[in-house]
Amino acid sequence: MINQKMFDLGDEPNKIRELFAYGMQRKAEIGAQNVFDYSIGNPSVPAPQCVQRAFEEQLAGDPVVAHEYTPSPGDPAVRRAIASYIERAFGFPATPGNVYVTSGASSAIAITLSAVCEPGDEVIAIAPYFPEYRTWAHTAGCDLVEVPASVPSFQPDVAAIEAAIGERTSAIIINSPNNPVGAVYTRGSLTELSAMLARKEEELGRRIFLVADEPYREITYGAEVPYVPSLYADTIVCYSFSKSLSLPGERIGYIYVSDRMPDAQAISTAVAGAGRALGYICAPVMLQRVIAECLGTPSDVKTYAQNRELLTQGLAQLGYEYVEPEGAFYLWVRALEPDAVAFSERAKGFELLLVPSDSFGVQGWVRLSYCIARDTIERSMPAFRSLMESYR
Amino acid sequence: MINQKMFDLGDEPNKIRELFAYGMQRKAEIGAQNVFDYSIGNPSVPAPQCVQRAFEEQLAGDPVVAHEYTPSPGDPAVRRAIASYIERAFGFPATPGNVYVTSGASSAIAITLSAVCEPGDEVIAIAPYFPEYRTWAHTAGCDLVEVPASVPSFQPDVAAIEAAIGERTSAIIINSPNNPVGAVYTRGSLTELSAMLARKEEELGRRIFLVADEPYREITYGAEVPYVPSLYADTIVCYSFSKSLSLPGERIGYIYVSDRMPDAQAISTAVAGAGRALGYICAPVMLQRVIAECLGTPSDVKTYAQNRELLTQGLAQLGYEYVEPEGAFYLWVRALEPDAVAFSERAKGFELLLVPSDSFGVQGWVRLSYCIARDTIERSMPAFRSLMESYR
Repeated sequence: MINQKMFDLGDEPNKIRELFAYGMQRKAEIGAQNVFDYSIGNPSVPAPQCVQRAFEEQLAGDPVVAHEYTPSPGDPAVRRAIASYIERAFGFPATPGNVYVTSGASSAIAITLSAVCEPGDEVIAIAPYFPEYRTWAHTAGCDLVEVPASVPSFQPDVAAIEAAIGERTSAIIINSPNNPVGAVYTRGSLTELSAMLARKEEELGRRIFLVADEPYREITYGAEVPYVPSLYADTIVCYSFSKSLSLPGERIGYIYVSDRMPDAQAISTAVAGAGRALGYICAPVMLQRVIAECLGTPSDVKTYAQNRELLTQGLAQLGYEYVEPEGAFYLWVRALEPDAVAFSERAKGFELLLVPSDSFGVQGWVRLSYCIARDTIERSMPAFRSLMESYR
Repeated sequence: MINQKMFDLGDEPNKIRELFAYGMQRKAEIGAQNVFDYSIGNPSVPAPQCVQRAFEEQLAGDPVVAHEYTPSPGDPAVRRAIASYIERAFGFPATPGNVYVTSGASSAIAITLSAVCEPGDEVIAIAPYFPEYRTWAHTAGCDLVEVPASVPSFQPDVAAIEAAIGERTSAIIINSPNNPVGAVYTRGSLTELSAMLARKEEELGRRIFLVADEPYREITYGAEVPYVPSLYADTIVCYSFSKSLSLPGERIGYIYVSDRMPDAQAISTAVAGAGRALGYICAPVMLQRVIAECLGTPSDVKTYAQNRELLTQGLAQLGYEYVEPEGAFYLWVRALEPDAVAFSERAKGFELLLVPSDSFGVQGWVRLSYCIARDTIERSMPAFRSLMESYR
């Protein structure tokens, strides 16, 4: 007498979380310094000074105001601040009415899909992809259609996406800088994708929304991250401050419905409706006001850049194959056997926690989160060497 | 090309929010002191000292830890603290595995209904009721069935509930202390309700869950608030700290699946699945740890008790009919004409903002939130007098 779908979803093994939990246990057993935990994307860089200061300011004020309800789409001043930041940072005129503050990117994507899709529609994701895309597509009553990225660039395969688009396609989720691969979609790729989508919209006589999931926008190593709404009108941006401000557990982000859509206001209304339907009242108020004070605060990407150098150089020397990451803090490494799950299991024997690519819809790779202590990366190299040797 | 249901939901007039927005505008026009705003349940009592202290402790610690992800059902230490509080406060043995920390009672109820109902089921609410119950029932694919409370006690009408239960009934939502009426369900009422439900479960061969929505548990004026799981095994408690700790905009609460159910663990698994489906990753981490430090901290009910006295005595003298509130901070007042919307409109002419009962599924009453400044209540009395006189 419970909902079987929800039970199955709650019961479904989550490899990333399982590995993380195994790591906790293993660290207790043999000491944290002896486990090389590359499992989870919990930023290791502390939140910038601005965050601490903004929290203190909120707490020094009137407590009734500090913790009050805000309107569901967010505190009007916060929505204004975000819209004006979008304008300043991307030269893209944004109105506060099309900004909806959310409890992180997760709720942003769940709400967006429920707002723009009809049950029975299809949502396209580019594999490898964040596994919850499938869950949220199902919540909106949709099927998730996987389209593999081009290999080895891991850019969108525009021809394959075009082939996957049909009468039921209502949205395509893109994630650049990308989790799990670290690819950043080039202006060329995005322009080609946009042109194809515009043509398909015309051809099929239906809207195809580009949902740009962008929590890693600020974490790059030199690559340009084009602003998607400036390339494709029917874009909805789902942003999170989890990574850029190192606030993953606080759950704060936003939806921006591009003002270039003539019916942006109606779509924002559907977004507000979907937020209600999924049980949201407002995003956490103190966090709303904290991030409004810290928009555009550069996060300390230097640490991640150093980790990236150290890890890629070390693995290259050992003969591992990987995708050179241009953004985010993940390294996508070729498993040393076709079965990535078996490879991940074997790596555990060397105290290396690597997430098998099966969790992201593809086979034969593992994901390493390198938002960890530099020291852990250094000390893990002999383990990677032994792992490699075990396959000789 | 958007989801019409979500658009309609986003576009639906919300009387409480509309009146609140009207109040903001009116205050700007004629001065805040000239508007008597009884529209919204934003606690006027500041959060207790404990909350401020707990926030400061979090912020003084390691920022990476302070803002980290927690497991989806909550920080294990927080779940343990809540379970042990339930045991201490209600003498009810609770295990941490059946506590799921949420973004307030709203998400708790939305998640619970999605977890235990199948599409096509019915959920019963006792009118007058919080209007979002209907929205969340619909999200779970269910119909909401309204059963009027007994008048004038506003206790559950057990015979009427029994008559409404059928082959599709999967849950009944109760809210005591009650918004909007202020009634507290007596031990007698709840025992009678529980006995009837147990009998109906047997008779129909299906589970009927009692969903106890309890954000006002600690706000009472002497009445006992029995712990529902101790009366009825198939109870799921949806709790929020919004009112008891004056943190409405922070979104923090929990679901407790009663350990008296033999399959409590399976239901908790479905709860976790529903949380994933609706886009939740974890409840805001700092808030989780703040409330864990402040469990059982008495909120300052004295202020609300004084407001209640002042308001009820004043209105009684003027000849208004109302329900004597035993909990929460709402007064349920009989409109002076059958059409509560028209009455609320007329009241606006006297700068009185009163929510018509139509929002809560019944006609002919208005709701007054008295979690406001004492001074506002005092100064509103001449307006209530004039409103009364306008009907003579």
